[in-house]
Amino acid sequence: MHMLLSSFFFAEFPLYACAVTIQIRKFRENAMFTKIWHLLIGSPLPTQDAGHKRLSNWQALAAFSPDALSSIAYANQEIFLSLVVAGSAGLSYSTGIGASITLLLAIVALSYYQTIHAYPSGGGSYVVARENLGKLPGLVTGAALTMGYLLTAAVSLTAGVDAIASAFPVLWGHRVAVALAILVIITIANLRGLQEMSVTVGVPVYLFLGTYLLMLAYGLVRLMMEGAGSLAAVAPLPQTEVTLSLLMRTFAAGCTALTGIEAISNGVPTFRKPEMKNAGHTLAWMAVLMGLLFIGSIGLTQFLAVVPGEQETILSALARRILGSGFAYYVIQINTLLILSVAANTSFSGFPQLATILARDGYLPRQLTSLGDRLVYSNGILLLAAGTAVMIVLFQGDSHALIPLFAVGVFMAFTLSQTGMVLHWRREKGKGWQGKALINLAGAATTFVALIIIGVSKFLEGAWIVLVWVPLLVGMFQRIRAHYDEVAAELSMRGLPPSLRPMPAPRIVIPISGVHRALVGAVNYARSISQDITALYIEFEPGRGEEVRKKWAQWWPDIPLAIMPSPYRSLVGPLLDYLDKEDEARNDGQLATVILPEFIPTQWWQSLLHNQTALLLKFAILYHRRLHNLERVIIEVPFHLRR
Amino acid sequence: MHMLLSSFFFAEFPLYACAVTIQIRKFRENAMFTKIWHLLIGSPLPTQDAGHKRLSNWQALAAFSPDALSSIAYANQEIFLSLVVAGSAGLSYSTGIGASITLLLAIVALSYYQTIHAYPSGGGSYVVARENLGKLPGLVTGAALTMGYLLTAAVSLTAGVDAIASAFPVLWGHRVAVALAILVIITIANLRGLQEMSVTVGVPVYLFLGTYLLMLAYGLVRLMMEGAGSLAAVAPLPQTEVTLSLLMRTFAAGCTALTGIEAISNGVPTFRKPEMKNAGHTLAWMAVLMGLLFIGSIGLTQFLAVVPGEQETILSALARRILGSGFAYYVIQINTLLILSVAANTSFSGFPQLATILARDGYLPRQLTSLGDRLVYSNGILLLAAGTAVMIVLFQGDSHALIPLFAVGVFMAFTLSQTGMVLHWRREKGKGWQGKALINLAGAATTFVALIIIGVSKFLEGAWIVLVWVPLLVGMFQRIRAHYDEVAAELSMRGLPPSLRPMPAPRIVIPISGVHRALVGAVNYARSISQDITALYIEFEPGRGEEVRKKWAQWWPDIPLAIMPSPYRSLVGPLLDYLDKEDEARNDGQLATVILPEFIPTQWWQSLLHNQTALLLKFAILYHRRLHNLERVIIEVPFHLRR
Repeated sequence: MHMLLSSFFFAEFPLYACAVTIQIRKFRENAMFTKIWHLLIGSPLPTQDAGHKRLSNWQALAAFSPDALSSIAYANQEIFLSLVVAGSAGLSYSTGIGASITLLLAIVALSYYQTIHAYPSGGGSYVVARENLGKLPGLVTGAALTMGYLLTAAVSLTAGVDAIASAFPVLWGHRVAVALAILVIITIANLRGLQEMSVTVGVPVYLFLGTYLLMLAYGLVRLMMEGAGSLAAVAPLPQTEVTLSLLMRTFAAGCTALTGIEAISNGVPTFRKPEMKNAGHTLAWMAVLMGLLFIGSIGLTQFLAVVPGEQETILSALARRILGSGFAYYVIQINTLLILSVAANTSFSGFPQLATILARDGYLPRQLTSLGDRLVYSNGILLLAAGTAVMIVLFQGDSHALIPLFAVGVFMAFTLSQTGMVLHWRREKGKGWQGKALINLAGAATTFVALIIIGVSKFLEGAWIVLVWVPLLVGMFQRIRAHYDEVAAELSMRGLPPSLRPMPAPRIVIPISGVHRALVGAVNYARSISQDITALYIEFEPGRGEEVRKKWAQWWPDIPLAIMPSPYRSLVGPLLDYLDKEDEARNDGQLATVILPEFIPTQWWQSLLHNQTALLLKFAILYHRRLHNLERVIIEVPFHLRR
Repeated sequence: MHMLLSSFFFAEFPLYACAVTIQIRKFRENAMFTKIWHLLIGSPLPTQDAGHKRLSNWQALAAFSPDALSSIAYANQEIFLSLVVAGSAGLSYSTGIGASITLLLAIVALSYYQTIHAYPSGGGSYVVARENLGKLPGLVTGAALTMGYLLTAAVSLTAGVDAIASAFPVLWGHRVAVALAILVIITIANLRGLQEMSVTVGVPVYLFLGTYLLMLAYGLVRLMMEGAGSLAAVAPLPQTEVTLSLLMRTFAAGCTALTGIEAISNGVPTFRKPEMKNAGHTLAWMAVLMGLLFIGSIGLTQFLAVVPGEQETILSALARRILGSGFAYYVIQINTLLILSVAANTSFSGFPQLATILARDGYLPRQLTSLGDRLVYSNGILLLAAGTAVMIVLFQGDSHALIPLFAVGVFMAFTLSQTGMVLHWRREKGKGWQGKALINLAGAATTFVALIIIGVSKFLEGAWIVLVWVPLLVGMFQRIRAHYDEVAAELSMRGLPPSLRPMPAPRIVIPISGVHRALVGAVNYARSISQDITALYIEFEPGRGEEVRKKWAQWWPDIPLAIMPSPYRSLVGPLLDYLDKEDEARNDGQLATVILPEFIPTQWWQSLLHNQTALLLKFAILYHRRLHNLERVIIEVPFHLRR
């Protein structure tokens, strides 16, 4: 019995939603909307334009480096927060830890420099791990990278908002809202496409580099003239002693300075030819700039004895110390926000590419492989934007809370990818492969050690989430792939007999709700394709059936009308019962075709005034159990309202 | 060009929503869910059981009176809040104002007593106004009543929660949540049906009546023994003087005591036979009880010199004064909550009936006329529940803020309905019609004066909302009716030539995405109904078309394959362009039929992994502009995944 499929508003709601979407789609076809949309994301580009959108090294540095360069904004902050609990004694380790992280940076950069040359197609860590370590490690890397991209966007945005809120304290209470607003702007910009982005993006990147390097140089001059400050005089009282465990935790927290270093190796195909050489140079430049910014800022912070206020980041305090609270300070803070905002953009160029590769391998929905109007992977961009928004809201815009997840994800991908590279060289055995393998081995080993340190010391602070997330994601990947494999097998023409048995002429059933003009088209169509037609009336109130039969006979006396009583006022139940019964009785190797006269209103709100019976019946029939695995065909004959 | 109809996730979302609904529908067909649902709302009842569900007078009093009886809970409160600003001098007018409202109550009750006898079918104010004053006043009454029902539910629930929060202050901060929870319970109870409700409802109604009347009697005894208290000693200092305007405002606020008095006249058909006599008796009893409770409680409040605390209602303070803060007090407060909760039920029996009548007249969506599983108008119940929830949240559960809207809506309906009765008697001119007309004229005049007083004195406090709402609603009613009239005209068989021109055999177009097994059913079906078949491939990437053509020729060499390039990667645009072009070229008085092979997954999540192309194409075709007003038929040939 299907009595529950009665005409509740709420059960029909999604059907109305469908009707509304159609109207939205109509609206999107509308000229004015199209103009506004194209103003926002640019005119559509034909497929053959793909491939022309290559980046110069300057543009590429702007497009791929913001995450890497801007990571000092949170890495320095993490190091400070970790050491300050041990007071001035703790803070005096800042530069030492900074130096060891810079060393790690050099090793990892060298590792990725090799990846660029081995994988010019730019699959990045996922491709490297999958090809060299196998399917499962590849998927684990993919899951870790997914997490990394999401967190790059979330951490960059929240850290950027922290920077601007340090300068304008009135924003401190609205950090989530500000971060979300910037996210919306970035998403729209990305839907426009990468090349135009890098022009826009170049300005803040080079502004940031210029002003920051100048500031650091000026700070160095002042340091040399004024001499080092005394941390002991400004640092709060220590709550704990300096232990090895504290230093380890600090190192782990500071490792976030390395995030984003892999971006260039993922994006080799977007470089101008020769791609590998250009990408390699850009990576080298980026690594040097990263190192300079990181060790420079952390060193000055220590030797100028900088300690931030309550609602202020350590970088803001450094800038204030060097530049005072004047115009130059505000320029620096605004630049910090800008570069962190475009850092989120690293994810917006990286994630859609990763998602497309995973989708092509059948591990993510296929829609992710389709190019949008502007030759960008719009679905990936939108998916990332949604995920980032969720992270920002969930963690209340607190970058410090997001960092542990971030670092674990990134270093997991680093380690797997570098291990893959070692195997790659061993398998290829090209000229001087031992040297290359050794470099990547060093990369793999150091990032693995860092991963362990991060994982252990930050386990309770959020690293455990990765341990839940990665297997979940990998499971999802595999389930999706299994489904696509199954579909491919079922859709294969292989094994199908070459001569296909022709079908008999269809038997037709037309469910009717009364005798009205919308039926004329349906009956005429039925007559044009079959001799075997029955109309069916589902009778809710006893007696109504006979009235309908009389009227029916006036117009179509040659077509029999069946009447099914429905004491529980269900439409679907009696219809399906009738069809099943008839099919079993006739047993002619086919199921009856159902013709549904479909009523098409002209305005969206009119859909709310009708029962959407055709849609309801169609879905009920499609999802009904099938006799002998035969398929039941549905014919929809529309009847358009004139107004 | 339809390039915007590309495969964004978000544009497809409602299509996924459809797929999910289907799964929900499947789930609802599932035996276990059906059992749980039936446990909640009871087993379905067949249509012929309708009409047997009649109420005895005791049951009817319980079903229809809670709103009327319980209105003392907010009316007294409003009178107190209005007078207390003038201190003890103001409060000393309480009983006087109470007495004048009781007089108004008597007049209105007498008016409705006559309505019962004139309109035994129980249309209530809407039917009376429509039949006697005309269409537009009828609709205005309908809109005012809609508002009244919504506010009865919202005000009763919030006032009930106020009562219980007076006794248990811990709830004071959670009043919105508590009110919503009770609303959910009431909604479920109502979906079960009215008769079973009135058994459940009878208990709190008679408990309330019994305990309250006893309390008032005991209070009277104590008043006589102890003598009157001194208001001057307890009332706060006056902030204003007693003016005529203050007294008017107080009267206006207190008029909410009359709400619910019309409920019985709307529900005459649910009484046992003889309906009119039974309903009349019940109305008389109810009016007497209302008067007793109202004047008794307000008099005692004044003469016992009761003033409430900060987070307490005036009725709670009265009960505490008479009974102390012991067990009896808590019983009274819980009873107050219970009767106010079931008062909301007055709306749940009244509104669905009104909505059904309006829907039968074509002023509201037709779905509102369909009986649910339990022979109640489920859609009306759900609509009311949703509206009430919105009101409670919007007004933050504050009954005082809702009262002005409430009073205006109710008295507008009173006035229109009583005016209609005057015209009714004048037209009928039955025995002693002058006397009857005079009584209703008195009702109309007094309620009109009250309406003016309320409207003017409470205009800025919310009465203005009614002035916006009523015209909006009336406009909506008329627009809906115009649509149904138009549809009826377009669907009419009248004027159709008796011999209907037969249609030519259909031309068939099958859009394909490749050569796969799902096409076998589609092609076979096409062959069974037509000789004129073309397959159509939309080519996104140059060169793919030729590959598909080769494969196609292996399987169906006799069916031509057309290839349409789509440089902007749109599916819909090229398909529609092809169809339009072909139809114009052939010009044979029909549009080509489109056969869509539809892919049916077995699990809901699988829908997310496919593009839902069939659904997308179907909607695009249905809503595409049509050549020569011909209709394009769509045939869906399903292909069920095995797993």
